[in-house]
Amino acid sequence: MIYLTAVNVIISRMGKKVMIESKLIEILDRFKGMIGESHVLSEPSELASYGDWTHLPSRPSAIVFPASTEEVSAILAYCSQNHIKVVPSGGRTGLAGGAVATDGEVILSLSRMNRIGVIDPIGLSVELEAGVITQHLQEVASEAGLFFPIDLAAKGSSQIGGNIATNAGGLKFIRYGSMRDQVLGLEVVLSSGQVLDMNYSLAKNNTGYDLKQLFIGSEGTLGIITRATLKLAPKPKGFRLALIGVNHFDDIPRLLEEANKHQLPVSAFEFFTGEALSIVLKQYQQIHPPLETEAPFLALVEIEAQESEECHFDVYLERVFEKNLAVDGMLASSSQEFDRIWSLRENISESLQSYGYLHKNDISLPIKELSQFMRYLEEIKISADPVTLVSFGHVGDGNIHLNYAAKKEDIGAEEFHSKVKYIEEKVFLLIQKFRGSISAEHGIGLLKREDLTYTRSELEVQYMRQIKNIFDKNFILNPGKIFTEKMI
Amino acid sequence: MIYLTAVNVIISRMGKKVMIESKLIEILDRFKGMIGESHVLSEPSELASYGDWTHLPSRPSAIVFPASTEEVSAILAYCSQNHIKVVPSGGRTGLAGGAVATDGEVILSLSRMNRIGVIDPIGLSVELEAGVITQHLQEVASEAGLFFPIDLAAKGSSQIGGNIATNAGGLKFIRYGSMRDQVLGLEVVLSSGQVLDMNYSLAKNNTGYDLKQLFIGSEGTLGIITRATLKLAPKPKGFRLALIGVNHFDDIPRLLEEANKHQLPVSAFEFFTGEALSIVLKQYQQIHPPLETEAPFLALVEIEAQESEECHFDVYLERVFEKNLAVDGMLASSSQEFDRIWSLRENISESLQSYGYLHKNDISLPIKELSQFMRYLEEIKISADPVTLVSFGHVGDGNIHLNYAAKKEDIGAEEFHSKVKYIEEKVFLLIQKFRGSISAEHGIGLLKREDLTYTRSELEVQYMRQIKNIFDKNFILNPGKIFTEKMI
Repeated sequence: MIYLTAVNVIISRMGKKVMIESKLIEILDRFKGMIGESHVLSEPSELASYGDWTHLPSRPSAIVFPASTEEVSAILAYCSQNHIKVVPSGGRTGLAGGAVATDGEVILSLSRMNRIGVIDPIGLSVELEAGVITQHLQEVASEAGLFFPIDLAAKGSSQIGGNIATNAGGLKFIRYGSMRDQVLGLEVVLSSGQVLDMNYSLAKNNTGYDLKQLFIGSEGTLGIITRATLKLAPKPKGFRLALIGVNHFDDIPRLLEEANKHQLPVSAFEFFTGEALSIVLKQYQQIHPPLETEAPFLALVEIEAQESEECHFDVYLERVFEKNLAVDGMLASSSQEFDRIWSLRENISESLQSYGYLHKNDISLPIKELSQFMRYLEEIKISADPVTLVSFGHVGDGNIHLNYAAKKEDIGAEEFHSKVKYIEEKVFLLIQKFRGSISAEHGIGLLKREDLTYTRSELEVQYMRQIKNIFDKNFILNPGKIFTEKMI
Repeated sequence: MIYLTAVNVIISRMGKKVMIESKLIEILDRFKGMIGESHVLSEPSELASYGDWTHLPSRPSAIVFPASTEEVSAILAYCSQNHIKVVPSGGRTGLAGGAVATDGEVILSLSRMNRIGVIDPIGLSVELEAGVITQHLQEVASEAGLFFPIDLAAKGSSQIGGNIATNAGGLKFIRYGSMRDQVLGLEVVLSSGQVLDMNYSLAKNNTGYDLKQLFIGSEGTLGIITRATLKLAPKPKGFRLALIGVNHFDDIPRLLEEANKHQLPVSAFEFFTGEALSIVLKQYQQIHPPLETEAPFLALVEIEAQESEECHFDVYLERVFEKNLAVDGMLASSSQEFDRIWSLRENISESLQSYGYLHKNDISLPIKELSQFMRYLEEIKISADPVTLVSFGHVGDGNIHLNYAAKKEDIGAEEFHSKVKYIEEKVFLLIQKFRGSISAEHGIGLLKREDLTYTRSELEVQYMRQIKNIFDKNFILNPGKIFTEKMI
């Protein structure tokens, strides 16, 4: 048996082109027999375009589009027997390269498995296939008077299976948690082709180990998620939103503490720096800043409440000023203002593209350590020049998006990358010291493998590897993701 | 090396009493050297009393009380090297025998590890040791103006580590979830003595497999939980409570659906039968039933809201009567009434003791299947006579406590047990058909091992067994729990 880890690579490396090509043709024929000719792609132009948001080069041998769990099972059983490596693919909006084929693997796309079952209005749940687009689920839930709370920038193309495999978080995390918190049941096809149907749609089930948890956030390395039962939430009555400027970062966690004391139903608690705000305002050519008084740090506080409803939000805002926590603030009084405030926060990422060079970290810290971390970060910033460190994020979850940006006129490409590497190591050591995470939301994929042990101990990695070995004995599923070669 | 699976058993079976006793003495001396003489118990009277709420016979060889993670680690490393089996022990309030030593194992109690760290008022979390009593944590949280939402009948003696190891649920599940939903970080000592420190206190951390999830609900078979970081919630402003009588069980899920539509912050949604109510009233010699109109089924609906607050609860209750869902109802208008209504529900379990024979199931179903399940159950009830089936439970979680009760004048002990076995099989087959759980909250322990595969597939059990094999290679941790011998 030829070990087809990477068909294309073997073609070029072994120089036995005819034999290997005939093997590839045989494999493609088998796939076509299983799922139909039109659902197997192998044209070079199609293959090259099948990357993700990292824009890493995409080098699969083929892309297959099964339409059912049975088809996924048949494909994986065949691939397992023939040592063909497989990369599961959802909406390909990942930021860590978790769905990128690097070495001639077969990409298995869930796109055709996109059916949504009937919503249970009593148990507040829905069964659906893995290829359902996030936004589509949001819309279907909304039509039923319910709410699917995972809200991501990528929602227009990200798929539910991918959201689960990466344990996606998003803007409403502080109130609704991540995908893990939405999953009641999970159906997974293992690399052997075996189908694990876990927990059905049960809210409560204490019968041994909760296996489904292993697959949530496993980035397709343990099995391919084909179906899930997800919780839905009652639709929020409405939202209220305030933007608050403060003089010191320390005041931001204090604002959150005050919100907790007032028992506010906080649905988002974001922060960004005054610097990030000016970048956005400049980029979008807005002359008027949202607050009259300039502030080095800003907090965006959203709560779930009807505008008309008597609520503690106004009392909270009064109190925040009485306590001198805020230097300025505004309460959105129209849907236009609501959208404008949110857009200031949401446009930061895109505005940063105006710098010629950009590198991103998605980190988290214990919330109580945030202030101290930010103080240390100020010191690191000084040594970073001419690279600017711009931070914003979901402060309520301890999650900071840290951006390393520089203009092309100030620094060369190589110098930028070596400078980033140098600063990033300092940042990651700091995170390790504070027991934080080097990847809060985005996962490990290909890009963070070398950094995994800043957050996870050698012992944890050793057990993770053993779990990989249980579920994917032949190591055919999403090779090279999460683990470096020396870890396997 | 003598294989000390069960010291006492070996003493009697092998007939080499002197040698084995000297071996036991050597082991006890080693424990005393590690944790101090007064923290090792081995008197027969002490050993026999160390059971749990199942009242299964307790047969340990010794009980050890380590005071730190290091001591737990030293004990487990020694036991692993010497093939001594260990039963972890929390507050011993389990209902499935999960903490019972059956065969001369060493019981490791976490009771001395009962320190609570400083509460983080911003991140709303607290780090604590596994031996903290649930109620103690509730009190400490309350003093800090916060709320620990896991509320169990056993809270006065159950411990946090045990709650995590059994994934305890409780009365507020519908709003706050189970222990799994409260755990941010977990420290676990493996049978090798290795310490796994997982996730610290991070809200967000997507860096590979979430190993801590495996230990939650694993009933001490994978490792011993020594420390955790738990979420706390803002303290609820208050509660409002209604008791609603309905004519058909089907109306109970409809009441819940209506509550969802009104976006009520439901904190408990319980049901019990009119039969259960009369048993309680009789037992407590209460002449006046809570509702004027007798109803075959009752729902207890609690929401989180201040009494003074304008809220949708009254609108909801009006609507429920307009829609003819309810035959009668009352709203608690004083704290006395509030307590009385709750006591009717909470006293069912104890009142059932008035029957001479009692057997309990703790089952769950997909919420949408509840009504149909209850219809089938009515049929089973007929064939059960003279055994009465009394049901109550957390309908909002699909969780039914099903009680098999009979009076001693109506049936003999042996006949009762064989009748129960016969009916229970019918019930479990029904649960299997509806893809429910044969143990919603109480776990598997010793008592439900034979029934595990009604809920979990052979394939799942096979993978659970492999995971056991990774973390506890020598199979010294909580032997005989969850898995039957043929599964191992």
